[in-house]
Amino acid sequence: MEFSLIDRIRELTAQTREDVRLGIGDDAALLRVPDGQELVVAIDTLVEGVHFPLGTAAADIGWKALAVNLSDMAAMGAAPAWALLALTLPNGEAAFVDDLAAGFAQLARQYRLALVGGDTTRGPLALSVAVHGLLPSGHALLRAGAQVGDAICVTGTLGDAAAGLELLRAGGGADAHAAYLVERLHRPTPRIDAGLALRGQAHACIDVSDGLLADLGHICAASGVGARIDASLLPFSPALLNVFGAHAAREFALSGGDDYELCFTVPVDRATALQSNRVQLGCAATVIGHVVEGSGVHAYDGDGRELALERRGWDHFRA
Amino acid sequence: MEFSLIDRIRELTAQTREDVRLGIGDDAALLRVPDGQELVVAIDTLVEGVHFPLGTAAADIGWKALAVNLSDMAAMGAAPAWALLALTLPNGEAAFVDDLAAGFAQLARQYRLALVGGDTTRGPLALSVAVHGLLPSGHALLRAGAQVGDAICVTGTLGDAAAGLELLRAGGGADAHAAYLVERLHRPTPRIDAGLALRGQAHACIDVSDGLLADLGHICAASGVGARIDASLLPFSPALLNVFGAHAAREFALSGGDDYELCFTVPVDRATALQSNRVQLGCAATVIGHVVEGSGVHAYDGDGRELALERRGWDHFRA
Repeated sequence: MEFSLIDRIRELTAQTREDVRLGIGDDAALLRVPDGQELVVAIDTLVEGVHFPLGTAAADIGWKALAVNLSDMAAMGAAPAWALLALTLPNGEAAFVDDLAAGFAQLARQYRLALVGGDTTRGPLALSVAVHGLLPSGHALLRAGAQVGDAICVTGTLGDAAAGLELLRAGGGADAHAAYLVERLHRPTPRIDAGLALRGQAHACIDVSDGLLADLGHICAASGVGARIDASLLPFSPALLNVFGAHAAREFALSGGDDYELCFTVPVDRATALQSNRVQLGCAATVIGHVVEGSGVHAYDGDGRELALERRGWDHFRA
Repeated sequence: MEFSLIDRIRELTAQTREDVRLGIGDDAALLRVPDGQELVVAIDTLVEGVHFPLGTAAADIGWKALAVNLSDMAAMGAAPAWALLALTLPNGEAAFVDDLAAGFAQLARQYRLALVGGDTTRGPLALSVAVHGLLPSGHALLRAGAQVGDAICVTGTLGDAAAGLELLRAGGGADAHAAYLVERLHRPTPRIDAGLALRGQAHACIDVSDGLLADLGHICAASGVGARIDASLLPFSPALLNVFGAHAAREFALSGGDDYELCFTVPVDRATALQSNRVQLGCAATVIGHVVEGSGVHAYDGDGRELALERRGWDHFRA
């Protein structure tokens, strides 16, 4: 079982990278980090029933396991290079394995990411992916570094994934808007291009995996600053507004997780330029507030009234 | 839960390494690979009930999860540097987590290994560890490279872990010999020093995780050669001989897994020097046969009669 899956993904991924001296097939892979580059590494696990619902399509599972890790690369401003996949499967059903490999490889190809190692074991369905990226030494985007006066921006739209999960829980919703929201849950887009474009631009950056309030809170804590958000500026998708309306959309955007957009701070003058540079970012960027003195995240409505916020993080499929 | 465990291990590990630019606490770690060095990476997962029995002590689980990955570094001749730990836990019981962290850190300290990232999720007990090592470019020990006429050697003793598992299955055995065998199952010793000493010496190397026949078979396949083993030369521990006798010892040594000794091939003249160089290797090394033309592994008894071998690999806790 072990080799068939890993070989299948390698076959589908089919990347030739000069920096891979030895890939899958020995006790470990041999890799070369170019001079002047730093290595960026992260690991994340998806467990069935915790990070994705029972019955999720295998291809979506493969995609998402890689996407959530690539999102960490994006948040650092790194270019993805290599991945290791540790897969635990209850059985070796061929179609499931093929589909999972196809979903993983489909995303890997977009970034010329090479799978250089893996391990397949029998047990309850779970995937751990360790992703490796590269960036010029000293150019990483960190959580610390936000400065008072910075504009706070987010890429793309917020709240879609949490809304998609809500739809799944409620038994679906069959129109195109509903399908879009569920797709955003199952197939998040790691904002790699945006991360690369923000090198040397953003003062601080994080990916939104646990919800905007929680993740922007990490930037505030690491930077020793506070954040003031204007909730009327939050970017929503047409699908989210159409299915759930503006009030629920705001809740999903502030407290829902699994969006995998980037939240970053930049000097105000740069923010304007970035907002108009959609091609380089690969997506829209929206100013949603400003960095202020103090601590913590405070959100206000369009009339300047502070919102009472539930500050709990996203706990996935908590019963 | 997530941060308490990872922080606890970091606290217990407490390595300061100049090559760790940024450790745990941001979206990813930032690491520096020195010029002229290659990066060596591997990932392995342990699942409860598959790779260790239900009821295994938490500290042993933490140790073994790291040890099996360090063994891959040893097999490549790499010096361990950094690890990522993805832990899935059914609950966050503090004592269990503390003990697991202590076992992991106890082994990490021996090799100045820094934990640079981690992820904790709720689910059935499982650990994936990705280990990173370093070695001078072009000096890795590979499976390919064994040459006809080479001596085949193994470090330490074989069969102890499989015997320990057999004892656990049979409900124990309370004397010191039995305890030694169970300890060898729960706390394997990665042969890092031996791997380092074998750089520039061994033609081919692998770690024995699936059993000598299976793993030496990988060397043969990768190198396009055969192997002739003299079973009367296999190194056994006094404990193994005492508890199970010579005949069973041979079976455990040939087909049992989880030993995490190194099996390597070297020119015959070097083998003698290596055998007397126990200090540098950190353990004994024993010549058990020779590389021959052809393919596959053939074993003979002391009188030169070929043994009929079951060539199946180690399937852990297969029911």
